[in-house]
Amino acid sequence: MKQILLLGAGRSSGALIQYLLDHTDSQGFSLKIGDIDVQLASQKLNGHKHGSAFLFNVEDASQRGDVIKNADLVISLLPPSLHFLVAQDCLEHGKNLVTASYVSKEILALDEAAKEKGILFLNECGLDPGLDHMSAMEIILKLKKQGAKLLSFKSYTGGLIAPESIDNLWGYKFTWNPRNVILAGQGTAKYIKDGLYHYIPYHRLFKEAVRIKLDADTSYDGYANRDSLAYRHHYGIENIPTLIRGTLRHEGFCSAWQVFIALGLTDDSFQIENSENMTYREWVNAFIPPSQRGDTLEEKIAKYCEVDFDGPAMQRIISTGILENKPIGIKNASPAQILQQLLESKWVLKPNDKDMIVMLHEFEYELDGDKKQLTSSLQVKGDDIHQTAMAKTVGLPLAIAALQILAGKIKTKGVQIPVHEEIFTPILKELEAMGIRFIEQQK
Amino acid sequence: MKQILLLGAGRSSGALIQYLLDHTDSQGFSLKIGDIDVQLASQKLNGHKHGSAFLFNVEDASQRGDVIKNADLVISLLPPSLHFLVAQDCLEHGKNLVTASYVSKEILALDEAAKEKGILFLNECGLDPGLDHMSAMEIILKLKKQGAKLLSFKSYTGGLIAPESIDNLWGYKFTWNPRNVILAGQGTAKYIKDGLYHYIPYHRLFKEAVRIKLDADTSYDGYANRDSLAYRHHYGIENIPTLIRGTLRHEGFCSAWQVFIALGLTDDSFQIENSENMTYREWVNAFIPPSQRGDTLEEKIAKYCEVDFDGPAMQRIISTGILENKPIGIKNASPAQILQQLLESKWVLKPNDKDMIVMLHEFEYELDGDKKQLTSSLQVKGDDIHQTAMAKTVGLPLAIAALQILAGKIKTKGVQIPVHEEIFTPILKELEAMGIRFIEQQK
Repeated sequence: MKQILLLGAGRSSGALIQYLLDHTDSQGFSLKIGDIDVQLASQKLNGHKHGSAFLFNVEDASQRGDVIKNADLVISLLPPSLHFLVAQDCLEHGKNLVTASYVSKEILALDEAAKEKGILFLNECGLDPGLDHMSAMEIILKLKKQGAKLLSFKSYTGGLIAPESIDNLWGYKFTWNPRNVILAGQGTAKYIKDGLYHYIPYHRLFKEAVRIKLDADTSYDGYANRDSLAYRHHYGIENIPTLIRGTLRHEGFCSAWQVFIALGLTDDSFQIENSENMTYREWVNAFIPPSQRGDTLEEKIAKYCEVDFDGPAMQRIISTGILENKPIGIKNASPAQILQQLLESKWVLKPNDKDMIVMLHEFEYELDGDKKQLTSSLQVKGDDIHQTAMAKTVGLPLAIAALQILAGKIKTKGVQIPVHEEIFTPILKELEAMGIRFIEQQK
Repeated sequence: MKQILLLGAGRSSGALIQYLLDHTDSQGFSLKIGDIDVQLASQKLNGHKHGSAFLFNVEDASQRGDVIKNADLVISLLPPSLHFLVAQDCLEHGKNLVTASYVSKEILALDEAAKEKGILFLNECGLDPGLDHMSAMEIILKLKKQGAKLLSFKSYTGGLIAPESIDNLWGYKFTWNPRNVILAGQGTAKYIKDGLYHYIPYHRLFKEAVRIKLDADTSYDGYANRDSLAYRHHYGIENIPTLIRGTLRHEGFCSAWQVFIALGLTDDSFQIENSENMTYREWVNAFIPPSQRGDTLEEKIAKYCEVDFDGPAMQRIISTGILENKPIGIKNASPAQILQQLLESKWVLKPNDKDMIVMLHEFEYELDGDKKQLTSSLQVKGDDIHQTAMAKTVGLPLAIAALQILAGKIKTKGVQIPVHEEIFTPILKELEAMGIRFIEQQK
């Protein structure tokens, strides 16, 4: 019997684990889960006969080597910075590895060695990155086969809340690592439009969010993701004049979030003096220039950030409680940590809340002299707080990929992302059978 | 005969070397200069009988150890990141070290070990940091002795151009490391005012510059330096309600520089695609959102950055040539590198140009129930492009400190900055004798 080793069983591992367990008999493997919280891992196995959980400490090199050596394939859901430790052991023991994280420079440097060992390190195999690559590549290859010339590709993904579960002004609750949401977009966004490069520094990224229409009734805010340019190479569309990848939020989110950024409240690079003895209101006040006119802090913020005093952005800001005189209570905290603590207490999924994944690809291309448009969109709603759309769309591609590799059906080796037909075709097909299906519209 | 070892003989080393050479006979020492450019070092010695130059490669650990072992005192003018290499060897061989750079965490960690060895690592002993500490501490200690209660201390320093040598709209030319000027202020500025902390993120630092009046006829732009709060401890004024340290520029500089920052042109964190084949105008255009209205790039910038189309900030921007269709010509360049290359070609000192250092301390304090104000200011003009005010005010404090240490007159050990009376008193006295003199005004 073969063995799949899953490292990390936190948020979003539910659907992945369930899918794997459902296939242990038919595919002849057992599932071993290592997590720092062995009880949590055990719960998720729910007493399955082919499942086992153990206390895993990624820093323990000897344990790490042992468990990887005994596995046939490794899935890492650990924080991205820890994948490299796992990858090195996988390389040493010749084990395939699957992750949902961006390919780091360190991982990429293992490409040649992995090829020599005849193993596959498949990364960016979740939702975004992951499903976005797969669904985009399916269309890009189809259009190429038709002889089309690609003019524009815009791709947006959002981990959102279903309309029926929205009960706060932001239309947002955490369904994924909250820290990543707070720090989202830091750095410089890069994209290309009509053959011209564009760069957006973080301090104006959310200000430059655009309206993205999903259909006649539904539109979202869309802000640019960090580096769209790199994907020209991965997608084999080096000469496309327009390429942008971005993130979706419910309308109004971005102009309100821009206030946090303008003030400096998402900064994670320094610690606030005396944060443990401040209130949220005092903390925000420290980011307003003393010279700013206004009778109240609310008025000063509105003037300083150039938003309407009684407009929707200010309403959203106020609704978080960030202007209340409640104690922060954490020591030596960065602004980003303070903001995260506050929002984590507010933007919580209730047991019956449904989250929602929306992905939208917009293609423009020339075929036989005609300009054409094609959109492909995906909408997935969660069942409840346990079976979230996020957990399904991140976890299922990973799980399906793992089983394909375990069965020897994927021949590609080295450090890869799922842009190869032999990788994405079976994954998309299986997802479709499970109801996760893209809808194409030719315009 | 003793030996002083000077590592690095670049910009601003002229006055330092001359002062040391002038004292070799009276103080009985020789000066050895190590630089990667041995000819440059040699020229600066001008054939002096007690001076010698050698090719120094800081990465060559064996050479570094040898020359430090044979010296009695080391002055490092190397780039700040290299001081630690030198400091480790100084520690091993028990040699005193003097630098004009901020104390890094790595250097600070050597404090105990340096004290055990009975040696002094004196840092921040140039102009700013350096003379600012010394002149401030002289007044702070004087006021404390009088029994005054300090209410406010604001301190600003600028490396400027003398009014008679200003021939560009910015009133600025490079007299110090151009890269540091381009990157100035990146991070978050921190200060305290009326007992309240204030934080200014980089993206609005130059927008929040204030007007600093030197006298009835002269005022400057002043923007806050990175961390004013740390100096409460160094200056022994932990409970002062207001403390801010900042940098001076000629009026109008900051609002124009803010345009560069708002656009993202000072970013050093990524490389511009295809920079070698772009013009400056094309490059700037890449930072303007495609949706920005305006007939020309000039109009778009003015609208986007909210400055007058024909106002002084736009005039300054245009005067740099940054909107011209001239090729950039450097490969894989960051925005900051592109901007630096352009400005280095424009903001050049002419042979007879005079630079100017301005330092201004403003104190408010309570004494015997009265509120009082005291200002202390320094103005130093350069003689010409070789004998700059910058070279004098950075180099002479270093040189004087070195001779004091060599003569055994400073008893303080460990990692220090010049806030101790026994260190700053002789330095300020000697500088005064050389015409570098603070003027105090009681108000």
